[in-house]
Amino acid sequence: MKNSKVRRRTSPSNESDRLSEIYQVAAQIICEKGYDATSMDDIADAVGITKAGIYHYIHGKGEMLFQIMSYGMDRLDRHVIIPAREIRDPEARLRAIIRSHALLIAAGSNNKGNNPITIVTDEVAGLAPAHRRAIEKRKRVYLDLVRETLRELKDQKKLSDVDITVAAFSLFGVMLWLSRWYRPNGRLTREEAANQVSKIALGGLLASRKS
Amino acid sequence: MKNSKVRRRTSPSNESDRLSEIYQVAAQIICEKGYDATSMDDIADAVGITKAGIYHYIHGKGEMLFQIMSYGMDRLDRHVIIPAREIRDPEARLRAIIRSHALLIAAGSNNKGNNPITIVTDEVAGLAPAHRRAIEKRKRVYLDLVRETLRELKDQKKLSDVDITVAAFSLFGVMLWLSRWYRPNGRLTREEAANQVSKIALGGLLASRKS
Repeated sequence: MKNSKVRRRTSPSNESDRLSEIYQVAAQIICEKGYDATSMDDIADAVGITKAGIYHYIHGKGEMLFQIMSYGMDRLDRHVIIPAREIRDPEARLRAIIRSHALLIAAGSNNKGNNPITIVTDEVAGLAPAHRRAIEKRKRVYLDLVRETLRELKDQKKLSDVDITVAAFSLFGVMLWLSRWYRPNGRLTREEAANQVSKIALGGLLASRKS
Repeated sequence: MKNSKVRRRTSPSNESDRLSEIYQVAAQIICEKGYDATSMDDIADAVGITKAGIYHYIHGKGEMLFQIMSYGMDRLDRHVIIPAREIRDPEARLRAIIRSHALLIAAGSNNKGNNPITIVTDEVAGLAPAHRRAIEKRKRVYLDLVRETLRELKDQKKLSDVDITVAAFSLFGVMLWLSRWYRPNGRLTREEAANQVSKIALGGLLASRKS
């Protein structure tokens, strides 16, 4: 990354690759140092870009935080929410949501215990009010999808006797906590971690089988 | 609180009450503003003490963060860990841990979604290395208690087929996430929230009953 200090004219797709690279690097630094302690200089240094150059891509720290969170929510849309909406059966949909979200989180984990996913959950206080509302709205769409799925399961008598909202948040707790403890070079592969988490989360929600 | 600006000679127990009041107020401000953005002046103002006076109680921000986390861990010891160690049967012990920890978290929640409990989990990066090690060590003691309890349950064939470490962290995820969503003036009482969370967490871990 350090050898890309020279700015080139880039095609739109290179430009968007570059942006997503910058968001990932910035997210990593914010995880390590905290949002308040991170400067635009830190990010420019880590990306290997001039301090002036970084402003070609992002217009300020507040804007950047919003872009990083939007990027995280875009990934959630693409890998979890959109594919889940294609699945008609609520149990299969719930399984797909848990598994794909757990895999997404495990994929973003590093061995230092910093995970950009945690920015979306932990740094909302740093957003300007309009940005905050936009992110909260997207989170709400996801919460609603999970609650609706649980409601369908309840109608099918497949849900254990639990409150749907508590169940949805508990599911988020199990999945999002993965970003705090999962280490890619540890004992479990991403797949194994996602499978275990799915099993535990589903076990807590699905009614015991009669068979 | 604002009317206690005059410093009085206090007895040791008043002194310790005052300290715990300061920690609670400071924890609340840190939750709202973030650790980096919180100044000693903010805390002095909120406690209703002179700026010089606050240093009678705490010697600096880093020290204070450590004291707040230690205070949180002391509460966990008193309300969760010590009572749980008295319980011989692992299933009863696990139920007691989940319930008492969930109640402790719900009790610390306010309606703005800020909970001092989250400081212990979110602000570890702000600690000096020796303090960080001390807090990590105390967290590890708790993790070990939960894992040992799960291991005993596994030996009794009462645990579903899940990895013990993943199960312990998933349990923490469900309980600690409560601090993000629980609102005391919402639909659920503390007791109801703790009961629901216990049910979901235990359902995911305990093997289905044959009877």
